[in-house]
Amino acid sequence: MEKIFDYDSLWRFTKNIFSAIGAPEEEAALAATGLLRADIRGIDSHGIARLTGYVRLWEAGRANTKPKIQVVHETPSTAVVDGDSGLGLVVAPFAMDLAIRKAEAVGSGWVAVSNSNHFGIAGHHALKALEKDMIGIVMTNASALVAPTFSIERLLGTNPICVAIPAGKEPPFVADLATTTAANGKLEILQRKNQRSPTGWIQDKDGNESNNPHELKAGGALLPLGGDRDHGSHKGYALGAIVDIFSGVLSGANYGPWVPPFPAYVPIPQNMPGKGIGHFMGAMRIDAFRKAEDFKKDMDKWLRRFRGAKPAAGHDQVLVPGDPERIMESERLIHGIPLMQAVVQDLEWLSEKFGVAFPVE
Amino acid sequence: MEKIFDYDSLWRFTKNIFSAIGAPEEEAALAATGLLRADIRGIDSHGIARLTGYVRLWEAGRANTKPKIQVVHETPSTAVVDGDSGLGLVVAPFAMDLAIRKAEAVGSGWVAVSNSNHFGIAGHHALKALEKDMIGIVMTNASALVAPTFSIERLLGTNPICVAIPAGKEPPFVADLATTTAANGKLEILQRKNQRSPTGWIQDKDGNESNNPHELKAGGALLPLGGDRDHGSHKGYALGAIVDIFSGVLSGANYGPWVPPFPAYVPIPQNMPGKGIGHFMGAMRIDAFRKAEDFKKDMDKWLRRFRGAKPAAGHDQVLVPGDPERIMESERLIHGIPLMQAVVQDLEWLSEKFGVAFPVE
Repeated sequence: MEKIFDYDSLWRFTKNIFSAIGAPEEEAALAATGLLRADIRGIDSHGIARLTGYVRLWEAGRANTKPKIQVVHETPSTAVVDGDSGLGLVVAPFAMDLAIRKAEAVGSGWVAVSNSNHFGIAGHHALKALEKDMIGIVMTNASALVAPTFSIERLLGTNPICVAIPAGKEPPFVADLATTTAANGKLEILQRKNQRSPTGWIQDKDGNESNNPHELKAGGALLPLGGDRDHGSHKGYALGAIVDIFSGVLSGANYGPWVPPFPAYVPIPQNMPGKGIGHFMGAMRIDAFRKAEDFKKDMDKWLRRFRGAKPAAGHDQVLVPGDPERIMESERLIHGIPLMQAVVQDLEWLSEKFGVAFPVE
Repeated sequence: MEKIFDYDSLWRFTKNIFSAIGAPEEEAALAATGLLRADIRGIDSHGIARLTGYVRLWEAGRANTKPKIQVVHETPSTAVVDGDSGLGLVVAPFAMDLAIRKAEAVGSGWVAVSNSNHFGIAGHHALKALEKDMIGIVMTNASALVAPTFSIERLLGTNPICVAIPAGKEPPFVADLATTTAANGKLEILQRKNQRSPTGWIQDKDGNESNNPHELKAGGALLPLGGDRDHGSHKGYALGAIVDIFSGVLSGANYGPWVPPFPAYVPIPQNMPGKGIGHFMGAMRIDAFRKAEDFKKDMDKWLRRFRGAKPAAGHDQVLVPGDPERIMESERLIHGIPLMQAVVQDLEWLSEKFGVAFPVE
């Protein structure tokens, strides 16, 4: 059961909820735009479905809606930002803007962020670089659900990487990927439907291959991209680890099994070595390498060659990273965003709790 | 059949061969060190086994052993280097040194390289950053062997990424990975032994799953990390594409299906849009983010937590990226480097051709 809502109505509601929990006007708007970017791009697990989650983090005193975000260290091309426990949806844009300003000044900018919270989808922040003819690179760590190759312990989050690259006439290249075989959201869907998961997505608590998505709640773990050693899981593990170290260790945030969880009912880890969760973001000016015009001509050629590649039997077209999300974005901005009944109920609960109309006309 | 050679003897022979094909003294030494780094780290496919390949590239006029390497564009934190068709083993160290100098000056340095050739293993170049308390990042494109998800065309190389991260007392983190499920070298071994390959490594010329490694020579393709769409191959495809664009498009080198092949008997692609093959390398100073001492303490904690993680049944220990290569390196420096008979014969052929003693006492 799904109901369709238009973007503007959901945006106003989301903004009003962020205002209701204390976010200043501008930051509430920023957070609403960031959160809903997931819904319009079709990554439903990271969008408005998480709004109650953010509210509960705030209620638990684990997210600060009036943060004093600070640059605690910097060089011409780098910085560390302390998010003061702010919403990642507000902290990450601050850090990305800083990376972009540094790129404007010295060619590239790299900002590690500590003391933050979940920031929605990485793609939203990376896409900002495109407007400036820059490449955007964004990653974040997250609480541990993933077992390294050969281990039965959950030590890494699904730790996504996004790289957005501008083009000329062709739509841009936007890769936004969790470093696991399958995103946790996909497993939640299978759990709800009581369906089996493909081999290579999860293991049980003893480290055996499993096709039962419920094992995840019984001590099992998500698997790094690759699934098992024969299929390169040590590479997915390495990629997730790089994201964790860049986001967590380089910034002074938490890392590995100490990254605090998003659900407020899950206790935070003991003896955390750092502050909050960490992000890492970068911007590189195209014309710090080549004339932007020349780059874009080559990039268009690249994109046309890949989009025009001969498809295998049973497939219409070869896609370029970012194509499915871009197509979804243009559809949902016109035709609206479908929300599952359970999500609508959550929003109605928020509406009642804070006296904020839903849907907003 | 294998024979054991000591590192110094192979190094001197390799250096003498590079000298024989015209490399100046210092560059011949640099190239020998780079090439043999693969052998001592256990990546036998990329080491001295390729020495004849480099010689043949030079004979075919496709590699220049007296290159005038030039910085063609730069900002405080970025540069583009033209390798003048030089050996990648010489061009890449030039670019990495430049990235390190920029990091010393402004916190980070990023160098895109065009007009180069194969540079050995990415790890060799990235490791250089560790000596300076920097993170090293190195990637390169390569001639197309890999089909994007849903395609039957080979459009990407095995495009490796290496990230080397310093630590305090613990051995460092060094991830060096091809963005395919399996490296081409592993398939060559199976081809030689007439053995089947695991599902997810390759597809046949029509894009069907295949377990026959010989399909690769019959129009098939290597598969991106993940193997198929259900197991995240679109992510491996995205990662390989990022490496291709950073290395090839950002630098003005060739990219996608136009990257020139390493074997000199394979004709170069028609209508190449750029120059040679491309690399991309970066260095970030740790203390451009945090006090190096604090970072190293946290990094040690990270490394101990992962190395000490509970192993799954049948495994003794959880490894950190770089552990197997580091262990191999210390073993082979003491006990020597085993070379297969076919490689020894190649070296004997070179010895005779250039009048260079082999093995060198």
